[in-house]
Amino acid sequence: MSVRISDMMGAVRLKRPLVHHITNYVTVNDCANICICAGGSPVMTDEAKDIPEMVALASAVVLNIGTLNERTISSMILAGKCANEKNIPVILDPVGVGATTYRTETAWKILNKVKVSVIKGNSGEIAVLAGAGGEVKGVDSVSGSEGTGAVLALSKKTGAIVASTGKIDYVSDGKKVYVLRNGDDYLGTVSGTGCMVSSVIGCYVGACGVTAEAVACGISAFNIAAEIAAEKAFGPGSFKTKLFDSIYGLDEKEAATRLNYEEE
Amino acid sequence: MSVRISDMMGAVRLKRPLVHHITNYVTVNDCANICICAGGSPVMTDEAKDIPEMVALASAVVLNIGTLNERTISSMILAGKCANEKNIPVILDPVGVGATTYRTETAWKILNKVKVSVIKGNSGEIAVLAGAGGEVKGVDSVSGSEGTGAVLALSKKTGAIVASTGKIDYVSDGKKVYVLRNGDDYLGTVSGTGCMVSSVIGCYVGACGVTAEAVACGISAFNIAAEIAAEKAFGPGSFKTKLFDSIYGLDEKEAATRLNYEEE
Amino acid sequence: MSVRISDMMGAVRLKRPLVHHITNYVTVNDCANICICAGGSPVMTDEAKDIPEMVALASAVVLNIGTLNERTISSMILAGKCANEKNIPVILDPVGVGATTYRTETAWKILNKVKVSVIKGNSGEIAVLAGAGGEVKGVDSVSGSEGTGAVLALSKKTGAIVASTGKIDYVSDGKKVYVLRNGDDYLGTVSGTGCMVSSVIGCYVGACGVTAEAVACGISAFNIAAEIAAEKAFGPGSFKTKLFDSIYGLDEKEAATRLNYEEE
Repeated sequence: MSVRISDMMGAVRLKRPLVHHITNYVTVNDCANICICAGGSPVMTDEAKDIPEMVALASAVVLNIGTLNERTISSMILAGKCANEKNIPVILDPVGVGATTYRTETAWKILNKVKVSVIKGNSGEIAVLAGAGGEVKGVDSVSGSEGTGAVLALSKKTGAIVASTGKIDYVSDGKKVYVLRNGDDYLGTVSGTGCMVSSVIGCYVGACGVTAEAVACGISAFNIAAEIAAEKAFGPGSFKTKLFDSIYGLDEKEAATRLNYEEE
Repeated sequence: MSVRISDMMGAVRLKRPLVHHITNYVTVNDCANICICAGGSPVMTDEAKDIPEMVALASAVVLNIGTLNERTISSMILAGKCANEKNIPVILDPVGVGATTYRTETAWKILNKVKVSVIKGNSGEIAVLAGAGGEVKGVDSVSGSEGTGAVLALSKKTGAIVASTGKIDYVSDGKKVYVLRNGDDYLGTVSGTGCMVSSVIGCYVGACGVTAEAVACGISAFNIAAEIAAEKAFGPGSFKTKLFDSIYGLDEKEAATRLNYEEE
Repeated sequence: MSVRISDMMGAVRLKRPLVHHITNYVTVNDCANICICAGGSPVMTDEAKDIPEMVALASAVVLNIGTLNERTISSMILAGKCANEKNIPVILDPVGVGATTYRTETAWKILNKVKVSVIKGNSGEIAVLAGAGGEVKGVDSVSGSEGTGAVLALSKKTGAIVASTGKIDYVSDGKKVYVLRNGDDYLGTVSGTGCMVSSVIGCYVGACGVTAEAVACGISAFNIAAEIAAEKAFGPGSFKTKLFDSIYGLDEKEAATRLNYEEE
């Protein structure tokens, strides 16, 4: 994977994939900017009349239920179906699943109506969806299923590539699991770092195809940028500013050197 | 109060209260981040089907009418009623009250249907609600009611703790008034600093209980962080970045030392 | 124009025009902050019941279709009509026109129902509206109509002042064209810099009247601030922070000195 992360970073920057987001209004601006900084081009539109043509232009579609409502859930399902028709990968970020029944039901509703290529959640959310326990309070994981079990189980259950993020990140395609060890504690002090990871995954699968490796490389590129940002941060505000700077300027060879992972 | 601010800062950081927001889409990201940096955990959800369960998890609910609409006003009232049932404190930020009839009527509609624990507005908004004159243009105070009269009057009228922010901040529980003298002019150059204060108040009453002292400590912690941020700022952009850094890193003893207030 | 930019900057800062926005939820916070930093006062409200009174307080109304939906399009038309009744200038930012039929139709629907004072788009969007070719992917220009043709044509067609932004910016009132050469490549690495320009234009026409010169000065002030910000930026994150700092602190004489333009 260390060779591949350099290649994939280059591919994203070269192809500049258009990533269509239907996402929450809390962190949407950060998603747009991280998408640009990672090498993609973001677009956000949630009106049914606008979705079919916009999806058709996109290389990936990110659905994030952070501030879900009845109207945008319909829009997400529509966008997902349009993407399915054109074989455009769909990434689902099931924010807050497990915290309320409505969120859990919505995530499954989307998973039942749309062929999702990648599910990316925090450790608690993935554990809840995998039926492996897990507790989510608000939008934060209280307890999840550390280890490789939950991503493997949820991937087998859904056919999607599954990524669980936390102190350690796990990515599985139902067979192998990448265990990713990059990142920094500052990521937990900024709202939306999980949403941003989903946008970066959109860039990577949009440019490089839907593989566990592409998902793992996207997450790792983000986490390595976070490590570099943290080195010069004075707190969460300056960390966030530097995170955009560092993923934008991330050297492809340095990323390969810093990559810290195992394959199980 | 100088001893209490250290204790309360510690309590917020220890308890990490979940603060449920139904707020405007302009400054929502800053509210989420200031909530984290002050020691809380933010969640934003405004869909009726999601609200009852999410409110039940929360330690405080912040209602902010900055970009109010018919749907979200209903959601705010629902969230407020759910919070009342569970004795969870509700903070109302009546953004732009006095600028339009609709905003003024909406604020009173919420106050009539929900038992609000804390009303936090700028000087003009509080003066308008108190019936003490006051002029609001857009979302900014043009003229308010300086002095202790408006907060006292509105607190007696509503039974809520009332906070009026501006060059000087006033907090009253209908009996005593805290006159708070921390802060920096840079706060007026960044959109949403008023909204952020409401989020911080949510953290403090969520962790420390509904008292005028908790509201005053929340405001003061924010304002002291602003003073520290301003010392190294080059303009509104860097001030905002440093504001997040400084409230996150604020030393509990330094806060007590810098605290500048009177009780009347 | 070099004398005028200093004067106009001073006028904006003195008058502090209230700029009412109905804009997208991706970049709305940046629009609010750039409006403050440029010298204006922002307000965002999109509820029909709130619009007539709020528009009446405003010096300019900015309509931005970045995340358009059926509800907010109605609100934009209502706000535009209210502004027309009071002779308050309306700025239209037709984000993503040409990318989808719905966006193109919406832009024309607004232009047909509202007297728009200024149309500000990227090179592709303006070319599409001018009928001069142009290709837009998502919200970014792929190919536009460089040169003075498109702004002249669209201005004649609509009666509005037309501004096309890109590496070079063009502003026309249907007779003369200002060719503006300030700016920096970093502007392309931050989401919403186009939206921010529309907010700044709102400040300038709100304070100085609807002229091609006021539009050109607003764009140039923003672009000069971008040049200054870029000098000390380490990437898109720090560039954005410094952009707010530098437009806030921009010296009126330095702006005149740095101004780089031709009139054709």
